[in-house]
Amino acid sequence: MIQRLAILGVGLIGGSLALSLRRHGAVGEVVGCGRRPEGLERAAALGVIDRWTTDPAEAVAGADVAVVCVPLRAMRGIFEALHGAVEPGTVVTDAGSVKGTVIADAEAVFGEVPAWLVPGHPIAGTEHSGVDAAFAELYDRRRVILTPLAGADADAVARVEAMWHEAGARVIRMGADHHDEVLAATSHLPHVLAYTLVDTLAGWDDRQEIFEYAAGGFRDFTRIASSDPAMWRDICAANRDHLVHALRRYQADLGQIAEALAAGDDERLLRVFENAQAARAGFLRLLEGRS
Amino acid sequence: MIQRLAILGVGLIGGSLALSLRRHGAVGEVVGCGRRPEGLERAAALGVIDRWTTDPAEAVAGADVAVVCVPLRAMRGIFEALHGAVEPGTVVTDAGSVKGTVIADAEAVFGEVPAWLVPGHPIAGTEHSGVDAAFAELYDRRRVILTPLAGADADAVARVEAMWHEAGARVIRMGADHHDEVLAATSHLPHVLAYTLVDTLAGWDDRQEIFEYAAGGFRDFTRIASSDPAMWRDICAANRDHLVHALRRYQADLGQIAEALAAGDDERLLRVFENAQAARAGFLRLLEGRS
Repeated sequence: MIQRLAILGVGLIGGSLALSLRRHGAVGEVVGCGRRPEGLERAAALGVIDRWTTDPAEAVAGADVAVVCVPLRAMRGIFEALHGAVEPGTVVTDAGSVKGTVIADAEAVFGEVPAWLVPGHPIAGTEHSGVDAAFAELYDRRRVILTPLAGADADAVARVEAMWHEAGARVIRMGADHHDEVLAATSHLPHVLAYTLVDTLAGWDDRQEIFEYAAGGFRDFTRIASSDPAMWRDICAANRDHLVHALRRYQADLGQIAEALAAGDDERLLRVFENAQAARAGFLRLLEGRS
Repeated sequence: MIQRLAILGVGLIGGSLALSLRRHGAVGEVVGCGRRPEGLERAAALGVIDRWTTDPAEAVAGADVAVVCVPLRAMRGIFEALHGAVEPGTVVTDAGSVKGTVIADAEAVFGEVPAWLVPGHPIAGTEHSGVDAAFAELYDRRRVILTPLAGADADAVARVEAMWHEAGARVIRMGADHHDEVLAATSHLPHVLAYTLVDTLAGWDDRQEIFEYAAGGFRDFTRIASSDPAMWRDICAANRDHLVHALRRYQADLGQIAEALAAGDDERLLRVFENAQAARAGFLRLLEGRS
């Protein structure tokens, strides 16, 4: 049970966390913090938060847990605002999609990652953003990856883990760099591929007609291309090295497919398609095993 | 009203057509044709067809409309079996995903595309196949593209168009080559990209972990990679030139994105992401406008 929860950045991610904890009666008061009073008023009207402030230090005062759900580019500014303001007994975690830069930001501001700071990443989301898109079930059976450093306070890590359990998620711990490598492959690369495809087709002369005759497969394939562009620019930039590596591997494999297709080596296409179909069947079994 | 409908190839596409027409009382008897008696028995047990034969010529005897829903590689064999067997008053259409090769197959078998043959393509489907995956709503508000040739019988085209209207679809006519160009971009290219991504990730050392931490975005993005591999090998081969062209354009654009990312040109990423997001919003408005 969290007596007071501070949510810094009350959008889809932070708002859904508050709603999921409220649903299970796992939180007392929720204090919201953001830059825009209108957004915070909206969050309060939706029942996501109880009260709000635009001052991060004020938001975390007296909080058991504070969760930083701001875009990656705003993370460092939040840490600066929290410098010297985090009281004993307050645990801070974040929800950034890349962990390396969050840790670097913390080191730059605090000298080292404080024992009370537990970097984390809930692997959940939709292509929508903002508090109006928040819903209580977002984290049900989803994975949350925590990447605590060697100097982390064990109790702090346990409290963050307990919070995500209450929110319905399953929690895994791994190293930050490994997290960034895995997410580059499964999340950041697919976003780049989808954005690029829609951008490519939008540049064709008959773009109107192309979209006119696209169907359900195309809609699903490109759903993630409706995600917030600035947020994804930041994620790509923050995970640049791992993403470039993943992109290069993909480009090489796609190049071989294109060569095989152009050369009439259709059996090579078949092997790739069969391998992919089988691998995805395994992935679906994994997904089913979670629920 | 179709008194007798012949479905040659009773799987997802042909089975769903029969079910959608039955739903509206738009068909009398449905005759199924296929190679495997077990599959046809199954289709009869599901109420998709009334009776069946493994002989295409027998299947189309006395039919008002015959719809060839076999894989592209089987199309020519069906045409050979139908040579001399199509009676006056019977209209034949197909559901092949590529129209150029269907027309070439018809020309090879019949000398020219017969006036009673109307090439077509319902832009609908799922990643599943087989008659058990068939459902009556598959074509509701979906597009069907007909690519009749100059020598087509106007009444034959009108009857095929009327059938698809009864199935719930909207019908557009265009040239076969243009169809193949558009579908290369919106359907065949995305399939290749999705298959390649799953194959790429399946080749990574930590593949198990990668799929373990993939989420909903990845599931949707790769859904089409669960489609039938042999069918998609055939589609890619049949639309080789247009698909190679689309792939090359995509590769070039992806290469520029990779360069921008590697060089730290994040504003270029942002422009691509913004352009894609806006284009997809337009695509979604198109989709909504249909329903």
